[in-house]
Formats: sequence, structure tokens, C-alpha cells
Amino acid sequence: MTFDNNVPTKFPNLAPKGPSGELFLANERAKGSFDVNELSKFMYTEEWLQKMNKVLEVLESEPAFDKTHRYYMNRKEKISSSLWKDRRIIEVAKEHNWDETDTQIANFLYDQSTPFTLHYNMFLPTLKNQTTDEQKKLFLEPALRHEIIGCYAQTELGHGSNVQGLETTATYISETNEFELHSPTLTSAKWWIGGLGKAANYAIVMARLITDGKDLGPHPFCVQIRSLKDHRPLKGITVGDIGPKFGFNSVDNGFIMFDHYRIPHVAFLAKYSQVKPGTGEYTKPPNAKLSYGTMVFVRANIVMGVRYALAKATTIAIRYSAVRQQFVDAANPRKWDNKVIETPVLDYTMQQYRLLPALAAAYACFFTGREMIRLYNLNQEAMQQGNFSLLADLHASSSGLKSLTTTMAIEAIEDCRRACGGHGYSMFSGLGQFYQDYLPNVTWEGDNYILTQQTARYLLKTFRNVIAGKAEPSEYNQTINYLTQFLQNPKAKCPATKPSDFSNPELILSAFGFRAAYGIAQVAEQIDRHGRSWNSMLVEISRISKAHCQFMLVRNFIVTLQNDEQLAKPENKPMLKVLRLLATLFALHTMEKELSEFLVAGYLSSEQSAMLKEQVIHLLELVRPEAVSLVDAFALPDYFLHSALGRYDGKVYEAMTEMAEREPLNHTLVVDGYNECIKPLVVKGLKKPSASESAKL
Amino acid sequence: MTFDNNVPTKFPNLAPKGPSGELFLANERAKGSFDVNELSKFMYTEEWLQKMNKVLEVLESEPAFDKTHRYYMNRKEKISSSLWKDRRIIEVAKEHNWDETDTQIANFLYDQSTPFTLHYNMFLPTLKNQTTDEQKKLFLEPALRHEIIGCYAQTELGHGSNVQGLETTATYISETNEFELHSPTLTSAKWWIGGLGKAANYAIVMARLITDGKDLGPHPFCVQIRSLKDHRPLKGITVGDIGPKFGFNSVDNGFIMFDHYRIPHVAFLAKYSQVKPGTGEYTKPPNAKLSYGTMVFVRANIVMGVRYALAKATTIAIRYSAVRQQFVDAANPRKWDNKVIETPVLDYTMQQYRLLPALAAAYACFFTGREMIRLYNLNQEAMQQGNFSLLADLHASSSGLKSLTTTMAIEAIEDCRRACGGHGYSMFSGLGQFYQDYLPNVTWEGDNYILTQQTARYLLKTFRNVIAGKAEPSEYNQTINYLTQFLQNPKAKCPATKPSDFSNPELILSAFGFRAAYGIAQVAEQIDRHGRSWNSMLVEISRISKAHCQFMLVRNFIVTLQNDEQLAKPENKPMLKVLRLLATLFALHTMEKELSEFLVAGYLSSEQSAMLKEQVIHLLELVRPEAVSLVDAFALPDYFLHSALGRYDGKVYEAMTEMAEREPLNHTLVVDGYNECIKPLVVKGLKKPSASESAKL
Repeated sequence: MTFDNNVPTKFPNLAPKGPSGELFLANERAKGSFDVNELSKFMYTEEWLQKMNKVLEVLESEPAFDKTHRYYMNRKEKISSSLWKDRRIIEVAKEHNWDETDTQIANFLYDQSTPFTLHYNMFLPTLKNQTTDEQKKLFLEPALRHEIIGCYAQTELGHGSNVQGLETTATYISETNEFELHSPTLTSAKWWIGGLGKAANYAIVMARLITDGKDLGPHPFCVQIRSLKDHRPLKGITVGDIGPKFGFNSVDNGFIMFDHYRIPHVAFLAKYSQVKPGTGEYTKPPNAKLSYGTMVFVRANIVMGVRYALAKATTIAIRYSAVRQQFVDAANPRKWDNKVIETPVLDYTMQQYRLLPALAAAYACFFTGREMIRLYNLNQEAMQQGNFSLLADLHASSSGLKSLTTTMAIEAIEDCRRACGGHGYSMFSGLGQFYQDYLPNVTWEGDNYILTQQTARYLLKTFRNVIAGKAEPSEYNQTINYLTQFLQNPKAKCPATKPSDFSNPELILSAFGFRAAYGIAQVAEQIDRHGRSWNSMLVEISRISKAHCQFMLVRNFIVTLQNDEQLAKPENKPMLKVLRLLATLFALHTMEKELSEFLVAGYLSSEQSAMLKEQVIHLLELVRPEAVSLVDAFALPDYFLHSALGRYDGKVYEAMTEMAEREPLNHTLVVDGYNECIKPLVVKGLKKPSASESAKL
Repeated sequence: MTFDNNVPTKFPNLAPKGPSGELFLANERAKGSFDVNELSKFMYTEEWLQKMNKVLEVLESEPAFDKTHRYYMNRKEKISSSLWKDRRIIEVAKEHNWDETDTQIANFLYDQSTPFTLHYNMFLPTLKNQTTDEQKKLFLEPALRHEIIGCYAQTELGHGSNVQGLETTATYISETNEFELHSPTLTSAKWWIGGLGKAANYAIVMARLITDGKDLGPHPFCVQIRSLKDHRPLKGITVGDIGPKFGFNSVDNGFIMFDHYRIPHVAFLAKYSQVKPGTGEYTKPPNAKLSYGTMVFVRANIVMGVRYALAKATTIAIRYSAVRQQFVDAANPRKWDNKVIETPVLDYTMQQYRLLPALAAAYACFFTGREMIRLYNLNQEAMQQGNFSLLADLHASSSGLKSLTTTMAIEAIEDCRRACGGHGYSMFSGLGQFYQDYLPNVTWEGDNYILTQQTARYLLKTFRNVIAGKAEPSEYNQTINYLTQFLQNPKAKCPATKPSDFSNPELILSAFGFRAAYGIAQVAEQIDRHGRSWNSMLVEISRISKAHCQFMLVRNFIVTLQNDEQLAKPENKPMLKVLRLLATLFALHTMEKELSEFLVAGYLSSEQSAMLKEQVIHLLELVRPEAVSLVDAFALPDYFLHSALGRYDGKVYEAMTEMAEREPLNHTLVVDGYNECIKPLVVKGLKKPSASESAKL
């Protein structure tokens, strides 16, 4: 090619067909009945919002946190730019004197995991919780100064959920007072370990402790794996990246194998159990119950995270649905400046049905996350006073809620993406990579199916206790309460006689409690009376966990609206009214989704089902005019969303074309491969006919 | 760094923990009760399988079709390697004298769309169907010789589903006998057009025909867009790639805008409507009904494609679930060579519940796809004789079935991916990119939500006809049949009194027919008697389409098993028995999923629901030992699957590690960015303590 090929493609300077997205959104914002800022403050506090705005300003001015190129990067570029962010955020935090919340906000807004993420989220917390003072000096202090960068190596190629099945061994060698780490098989390779692939020079390694010929099961060791001088893997170690994943490609998930690799005695994390130097004598850890508290905390935070996930997805889809028009609704044509326009898709009932329940769910997860953190604190206090009575219920609910809400979130992200039509499939929607990166939440921190068994075990145990008269109703244990109510009247019926009856909070709570209790009673009967095996009941077991957790979500939402002092203030009345609509929509839409269980329980009739459906459609109509204001209240900045469709200003099409101009394929006029693959085909055509045809003429 | 950094990471030569995947799969294969090869032949024919094996051999020996690097490529590499495939397949087809089926098989096995895909799937068919003889010479013939490469430009940035809303104009200029193509706004940019971004030099452009001041709506034009000499965009045209997408990144989906771009009169595709040269007088196309036939054909093929999608996903997940073990089932510990081993996850009921219905659905889609193609041919014949009586029912079913089955497929792919645990998230599972690439099926060729409205309109119309006595039961119209049956006994009840009654085919068909009819009757009542608007009924409307199509899927499966001559042969008895199990599992699992509708219709009782669930679990037990044989019967070669988890030989862990070694990040010991981002942090640590500590000592 003799011409200049490096001519970037530019769009002509044209406006989209009017009315503009800005006008549509302004119109929507005028419809909201409550003060958007007040609702944001209620959820986040004013202080947090101010902090966010300050941090946001810093991020937007720093090249290391720029998102402009995020959707075009290949794997290597993703890792390199992530490392750059990891380094700069340490410096920036110092420069701006950020506290822990500021840094959390920065990572939240940056919204992409990096090689150092697990250093902060797993390596440091493990070192804080499981080390002796000597080990803190040796490992934790340099780790806090980033002089060592760590990761947490538990999962193996052959073992995920079943920790007791891990194969890596750590054998105590009394002669040298060392442990010998070893990977006996291919399946014993540590696998999936975030930060291990290329970045970490240390790892917490979970390995079977073997001392005096006895296998004592998995224990944690803090192990150097790469040279601190040149970052090369140390001898005896094979380490690398596990390759491309569905998402999370900005993280170097890695593998590691040990070949009779010796580590010093001090590597064994010795706060809870010890191996005596020289003799190798083993001391068992004390009661493990305290560690359940931590699991509750992690899961409460996942539920709070679900709120953000739902908020992000619905913000994008609802704003775009207010701007995007498709078809003229002949029965009810929309007008603008007296001219018929196509209908904004948010006006179609089906679109509302797809999006508004997800919006309501975002608020539901906010109230349940908040309640779980309150209960976590209550329980921590109680445990410190030796009172473990709250723990079992809280732990069971948190397991099931992690499972239910992350499943809800990933479904909602995809529903929102599809509700954006074709453009939802473009990376510029912001929903594609989001879906990919969020997805591991349904598998990690307890696989969502396996977790439901923990919840169900507790529910069945409680049921047996209630039957045996060994459990009293209590304000701290809703499970006992709804089971007791059910057993008092196991043939109860829903009292609704018209659609609006379904908006009664007491009716809703009774219905969800009854349905959960009925399911638990059925499973208990199958197992306890008919001798069915646990394995054969797994499908029903996951259903009772879900039923219990849906009760919790609905209850936390409704009860908070009844009791919250701030919401009770007169000036917050409009806000409270809208939140009540959302609570009712969330509850009734959930009831409709799970309708068969309410019907099988004999609680709802066919006629009532029809009323319920009618009420759901009615609620959609009521929430519709508040929709854009309700997503605005999430206060998610454009920097965070990084979405052409979800922009606050509604300039959807301008953003789509601007982002398309940045596609690397558009930096040259003629594609690589043209000369080899297209030209020979086409030019053959150019020559042949002209030769033969001229002969004919 | 002074050392050699280009040292590829290699795994030690270790075997996985035993028993090996090969042994597990051999064990599974020994359990099957039927002849796997016979079932493959029944589905594909022996001839097709032989063709496939021949084509496979060619693909596996050709570097241009190698999949080894597929999961590591960035966007540009994907496009370049796709162009290379596009060129080589033309040459290879000639070298090996491939017929059309051979080429189809090759593309099926290669399993990735490329820049030329739309040339074959849309450009050529449009030219074949909508051109005059003159245009065939001018456009079709060189296109068949690949001297011009085309695409199909309909969708715009602002308009997808609503074709009538397209903005691009083509104004007839009588003075020069030309059309002037123009893009008046930003939203009028053609968008999403496969092959347009970088590869095509021609496009079929759908533009509003304007002649004599009249806007006649969208019509097709065949337009040159790039130079045939050097591939540069022609003057007046802005064209490029629309940027990264969730999947399909091996295709250059593009945009194009026209700035008063002149094209000759012959560009207007003139088989059905004409514009008279000089005067610009317009001749309307004849009856459009014939084109519905084509839509039916396209959608029947999508349903057949669903079969392959489900087959691929279940092959991978079921084979891996037979190899992967997790936890010892204490109540029923598995043994191998008299030693307790962890339980293969396929033995857990929950895993069966997640995977085996999807396996059954793959077979269901096969039988329905086959039936649709039979009906398509029947209808084509009938239409040629002026009989249009089959068309409406066939078109309605095909719309709804496209919607239902592609939604089923994408859900099943993701269910299968999740059922693979953590490794499902690795690209090496083969399920991640598959999900990404399959996803557009729920949006294109009719958005899945919008399509259901077409089906529902037909169902409601038929209902009104049946009520009015204007529609007679017929062997060609099952809709009329089940509606008539329902109206004869709208209070019918399910006769089942024990779980096994649910396996009765007649009971199943009556139940699905009744439930569909009940839903249609409800919607008709709301609209016709209560005056509810179409928009307010959209949720129920999508439900009746689904109910109808589930009836069709179940019926086609069951009735074929009753009537197929080949299956009736004595030697095929074991195969028929297993297929019957699958048909029943598919039907009853579907009934369980949609339980609320059967309950609300008053057809099933609570007690019967419990029996139904019991029967589903029982069927899972019966299908379980056949599972690996049933996926083997899909005869999908490892080359096609390209999955570490789904390999025929079960060498899952060997494949995972081999593929990880190919990760480009593992080709160097020390990661790019180490010197800038990690070293300064770590080495600061190395120096500082050694200096200050030595001072203290």
C-alpha cells in the first residue's frame, strides 16, 4: 500500500435524532416525588458522599486510574496497567493522606481487581489474625509496607469446596526444625490463587501438616516463593499464571507446585495451633466458633456488595431505557412538542417487569446488608461475653443470603444487559465486563449450591427443636418465630380478597413465613419419617434455604421501614412512601416468581394468584415515574459506571461513537491481513474479467 | 535483569491423583444400556458422520484451522486469524472437492464466526432471492467467486427491532438516474453489521426509498463501499469497526455512514419492487407471504442449532462431572479397588438435577427441529399450490420456538458452566467463550421478548376462531386441537394418583395442552372482555407463547417416539427405551419448572405436585447411568469441543496444565512491569532494614 494507512476513523459531526437523551432524562427527573439527595444521604451518610467526591476528583485526574482504554486491552496490557494502578494507589494514598475508607472508596470506584487485591483482602487479614508476635514482625510489618507482596493459596487443581481433601503436604523435619512442602501429584497444584501468577513473592499456603507420621489436615504456612532481589521463582518451586478466564483477566490467578521445598519452623502460622520445635509435638487450636463470626462478616459484606451490583446494573439499564425509543405505541402514542415520537422503552410493561423488580432488589439488599452488620456487631459483643446463642441463626442466614443474593445479582446484571437490546452486547454498555467479573461471586466464598445445605441443616434442626418444645420465640430469632406460628396453624390461608390486600405488610410477612415453614416441615417429614437420604433431598434442601432467605430479605426491608427513626421524620415522608412501594414490589414480585410454593403449601388460591399478578402490574405503574430518580439516588458517578448507555447526561449515542473511534482496529484504514487474505481474492476478480471481457469486445 | 527472562514455565511430570479420568469414563461407558453408535447414526445418518470424519481430518491437519491459540488471542489477532481461515477454507474446499455439506460441516466444527460469515449467510442469499438477472450477473456472480465480499446493513445505532423506524435515506435522482444514500443523523449510522468493520467491500444497505417526494420505507440496495484496488473506503463513506463486544470478537461488526453518496440505479434490488428509470415511478412488491417461509426456515435451523449448543454444553459438563470427585458421601461411600474414594459429583442428586434435564432438552430440540423442517417442506409445497393454510400456525410456532429454545440454550450453557465449579470459569473449560458467542441468539433474528408477541397474537386469534366455530381440529394444527379439547372440558383435572402415572405420555400431553389453553383463555378474557390494553398484558402474553411452545417441544418428542419407523425396529428397543426416559424427564422437569401455571389452572393439586417431584427425582436415577453414553452419542469431536474438561479421554488435569503452559504470561519468568511497579516497593524493603538493622547490631 502506498497511501498513508494510519488514518484514524472519525465520525461526522452530527447530532442524534431528537429529542435528545438529556431532555428525556430531565423530563424523567422532574417526575420523581422525593428528594434524591436526601435518599442518597440516608443510604451512604453525607460524610461518605463527601469523601467519595473528593476521592473521585483525585482518581479522575490520575492517568494510572484512567478507564478510557479498559475495554480494548489484551491480557498482558490488563496486567501491566493493573500493576501500575497498584503502585500508584499506594503513593496517591500517602500524598492525599487517605484513611482506610478513602482507599476503600478509591478501589470501589476503580472497580477492577488487580494483582495486589488479594494481598489486601486475604494475605494481610490472615497475617493479622493467625500469627504470633514474632511472625507479625517478620511477615506482617513488611507486608504492610509492601516490602513483601502476598497471596492466599488454598484451592488446588483437584480440590475446591472440599478443603479436607487438599493434597499438598508440609512434613515436619525435626533434624533441621523445618517443614518440607511437597506437591505429590498434578492435582495437588495450588490453582486459582489471585496475585500468585506473576506478582506475589510470598504466599500463605494451606498444606496438610504431617508431624510424627500423623496427618493433621490442612494448616496455614507463610512461604517465600520468589526472590526479593530479582523476582525469579525460588528453586524447588514451579509457579505461573493459570491462563485466560471468563473475566477477572486483570488479575494473575496462578498455580504453584513444590518439590520437597524446605521452609523454616517460623513459617507455620502459630497463633491457634503449634508444632513444638525439635519434638514436632502438636497443640490443637481452641474452639473454632469464633471464626464463624468472621465468615458472617465477609458474607454480610458480600450482601452489601450485591446492593452495588444491582444499583450499577439498574442505573445503566433504566437510564438507557428512558432515552431509547422503539416503535410507536398505536394505542397510546407518545408526543413531544406536539409531534408523535416513538415510545421510550421504559414505558412498556414488559421492560418495567424486567427492570423495576431488580431496582427494588437493590434496596432490599441494602436493608438486609445493614441489618446483618448490626447483628454481626451484636453477636460479636455477645460472644465476647461467652454468649453464643445468636451465632447459629446468624451464620445460617448469612450462608443462605450470600447464596441467594449473589445469584439474584448475576441474574439481574444479565437481565439488565438483555433489556438494553443489541447495545447491551457492546462492551461500551459497561454490563458485559461487569457480568464477567461479578460471576465468580456465585462460586467463591462457598459455592452457592453447597452453601444452601448449611442453612438447611440449621433450619431442620430448629424445626425439630421447636417441635420438641426446646426453642422459644424470640426477637432475635425469626426462624423460631415463623416455625412456631406455622405449627400453631398449619392449615392457614391467605386472607386477601382483592389485589390491594397484597400490599399489606403483615399479610406479606405471614405469607413468606408460612411458605418457608411449610417447606421445612415437608423436608423434615421426608427425612425423619420416610428415611429419605440427604443426597436424594438436595433439590428440596436448596429450596428451603431460598425460602428462608427470601423471608429475611422481605422482613428486613419491611420492618426497617416501620421502625427506622430517620425515615419517621415528617420531611422524609415522600421518601418513605416510595421505599414502601419498592418493598411491596420486591415482596410481591418474589412471591409471584415462587408462586408454585405458595400454592402447593395451600396458602394461596388460584383466584388470589390472579390478584397478586394484578397488584404487581399496578405497582410497576406506581414505581415507573420514580425509576430514574431512584437510580440517581444510588449516586454512582459516570467514572464508576464507565458505560455509554448509563451516563448521567443521557448522551448515549455520542458516547457510543466516541468509544468506537478508540477501537484499535479503527486506527488504520486497511486491516492487517488484507494483502494476504482479501486482496488475492478480489484482485483476481479485477484482472480476470477485464482481460477476458476486453477480448470479447 | 541480567538473567535470561524468556524461560517458559513447565509443569513437573506428575500424574493426577488416581483413579484416572480415563478409568472413570470407561466405567461410565460400560454402564450404558444401548448402542451409542446406532443412536448417533439415527440422529445424523451414517453418511453425515462419515463426511464429518473426513472433514475433521482435513481441519486437524491445516494450520489455518488450528484452535490451539484460540483462548489467548487479542482482538486484532482474532480478526487476522479469522481472515486467514476465511481465505484458506475457500482453497481447501477446492483442493478436497468439498460439496456444500462438507463446507457446512467444516464451519460447524471450526465453531467460530469470521468476517466472511455474513457474506455467506446474508449477502449471498439476499442477492440470490432479491435480484434481477442483470443484477445476478453484476453482483451475485462475482460474489460467488469472492471477487466482491459483502455484508448486510440493516440495523442502525438508533433502531434495531423496529425496521420501519430506520433513518438512512435513498433518494432517487431522476436527472442522473441515480440514488443518493444519506445518513441524516448520528443515530442513522448503520451499526452491528457483521463483516462491515474491516472486511467487506460491498454491502446490502436497507434505506428508506424516497422517490418523487414520497417516503416508501426501507428497501435493499447493493452498494460498493471500499475500493476493489486497495480496500480504502470510498469517498462519501465513513466506515469502521464498532469496537469490542461481549463475544463474537472474531467478527468485525461495523458501522457505516453516507454523506450524499451516489449509487447507480441498478443498485436497487429490483426483483420484487421497481423504480422506473427516469420517472422514478414505483411498483409495489406482490404478496409478502412467501417470505414468511424463509423466516420459518431460518428459525427451524436456529432450533436445530440449539440442539448442538445443548449437546456441546452437556457433553463437557457431564464428562467432567463423571471424572471430578468432591467429598466422601458418608452415608454411601464410593469405593475403587476396595479403597474409599471421593464421590464423582455426577452422583449427587443436585448435580443430576442441574445437568440431566439439559441433556434431555438437547434431544427435545433435535426432534422439534426435525419436525419443523418437515413442516417447512410440507408448507413450501402447499404454498406453491396456492394453499396458505399451514403458514400461520407454522410461522407462529417457529417465532415462539426460536425465542424459547435459544433462551433455554443460553441458560443451559451457563448452568453447565457453573456445574463445573471453579474450572468452569477458566476459558479452558470451553464454556466461557461459547456462552459469549452464543448469547446474541437471544437478541438477533427477532428479540426473544418481542417474538413472543407474534406467537401470542396468533394464539389469541385462533382461540377466538375456535370459540366462534370457525376452526376445526386438524392433524396439522395442534393449537386448534388443544384449544378445542380445553373448551369441551375447561374444568378438567389431572388423573394421576401415584408418581409413576406422570410418565404416561397421554397424561403429559393433556396436561401441557390444558395449561396452554387455560393461559390463552385468561388473556383473551382480559383483553376482549375487560378491555385491558396489549401493553399492560405483555407479561402474560410472553407466558402463553412459552406455554404453547413447551407443548410443541414435548409433543414432538413424544409423538416421534411413538411413530418413528426406525425406532420401532426390534434392534432399536434399548435405544427407544432410553429416549422415552429422556422425553419423560424433559416433560416432567418442564412441568415442575412451570408448576405454578399448572396449579393456577386448577389442573394439578398439591398432592400431585409432590408426586410429580418424586417422579422427576426417580427419572434422574434412571437416566444417570446412561448419561455419559448419551453425550457420547452426540459424537462431538474433541477438536469441536476444544475443552480441557470435556475431553473424550477424561484427561482433564493434564489438559488444564498443558493449556496453562501456553498462556503468554508464562513465556517469561518475570512479568512486564516488575521493574517499575513491584521492584521499587520490595527493594526499598531489602535495603532499608539491612541498613538500619546493621546499625543497631
